[in-house]
Amino acid sequence: MKKNMEDEQKRDKPISKTVISRLPRYYRFLGMIEAEGVSKTSSSDLARRMGLTASQIRQDLNCFGGFGQQGYGYNVSELKKDIGDILGINNNYSCVLFGAGNIGMAISQHLNFSALGFKLTAIFDINKNLIGKKIYGVEIHDVSEYESLKEKLNPKAAILCTPDEVGFETTKLLYDSGVRYFWNFSHYNINKDFEDAIVENVHLNDSLMTLCYAITNDDKID
Amino acid sequence: MKKNMEDEQKRDKPISKTVISRLPRYYRFLGMIEAEGVSKTSSSDLARRMGLTASQIRQDLNCFGGFGQQGYGYNVSELKKDIGDILGINNNYSCVLFGAGNIGMAISQHLNFSALGFKLTAIFDINKNLIGKKIYGVEIHDVSEYESLKEKLNPKAAILCTPDEVGFETTKLLYDSGVRYFWNFSHYNINKDFEDAIVENVHLNDSLMTLCYAITNDDKID
Repeated sequence: MKKNMEDEQKRDKPISKTVISRLPRYYRFLGMIEAEGVSKTSSSDLARRMGLTASQIRQDLNCFGGFGQQGYGYNVSELKKDIGDILGINNNYSCVLFGAGNIGMAISQHLNFSALGFKLTAIFDINKNLIGKKIYGVEIHDVSEYESLKEKLNPKAAILCTPDEVGFETTKLLYDSGVRYFWNFSHYNINKDFEDAIVENVHLNDSLMTLCYAITNDDKID
Repeated sequence: MKKNMEDEQKRDKPISKTVISRLPRYYRFLGMIEAEGVSKTSSSDLARRMGLTASQIRQDLNCFGGFGQQGYGYNVSELKKDIGDILGINNNYSCVLFGAGNIGMAISQHLNFSALGFKLTAIFDINKNLIGKKIYGVEIHDVSEYESLKEKLNPKAAILCTPDEVGFETTKLLYDSGVRYFWNFSHYNINKDFEDAIVENVHLNDSLMTLCYAITNDDKID
């Protein structure tokens, strides 16, 4: 009994955000070399391909329990599967997208959700011209329909691509229905009002403007 | 003479990446309240709207020289213009996009480049079905045409949306033609091979997978 509890604690010890953020990269690189027909790899081979150090890779993978064998290395398909399981890539979590404007349409049309752990189950907007249309089989509904659809959709996560001024009310609608995970492309600061929400922010405009600043300032210094 | 040099040094003192990364947000919020017809604001008003503290905002803006007046606050349009100038938002830097796949198409179709300091001047791909097509007036060329077009295009920055396996050769082509600024949606690690390139990475897939990890692990803990 005691042993089990210790195992539990070991499994649940917090892993740094930096290590976690590298897991998708490992998963991606392993998929790439698997596609090349490579069946075995080593921490130094992965290090070379990924621009990391071998010891960093060994340390990272050790956070999740031992993978690979001393002197043998890693079985590519097995390691990929194990990391995929850690990420939860096969869970097909239901997610809904709010805001079918430019970014929202781009995201819903161009991402391979099922390969990333999710299933896009519905899109919501207020633009009457969009309601009823389908994006790869996923229907665009009026925002007012969310209440009646939420039980069926049972979303675990929401993708927020809404204008700034409706960020709060949209998040509240979702939060009140039990959604705690947000992929946020809008500029609304979710955690300001919903502290326990788990948010991944992607601010494309800010990112491009930051590059603009870098160019402008190098130009000044030249 | 000495005084001038000191002024130069003051202007060129490095500003932290965190402060710089907040400038686009200031710019955005000022645009928002300007659109609402607000002509005057204060650090505490901005703080409330942006979820920052007033003293943080004053400190940030002081990095770029004094804005506003004690007891009066900030003139919204002027401050927005000044921050826009610092960002270099009116420079219309020529940029080219490589890789007109899902993400590349999304980016070229859905971003308002001119509002962000850039002008998308050309798109490059190797897919014969895409060559010659236009996205809002921007032509898709074959990658092999870059050499003959680069002088006319004179790109300052490149948007990389290429598959991992051509990341190096694409970057080299651009780097050799003088491009040092990259907005990188691909998974190729540019700085591994081109140390002095300035890179803004956007890894959408990794971001979504990280959210998947968060859901999966909360589920386990529950």
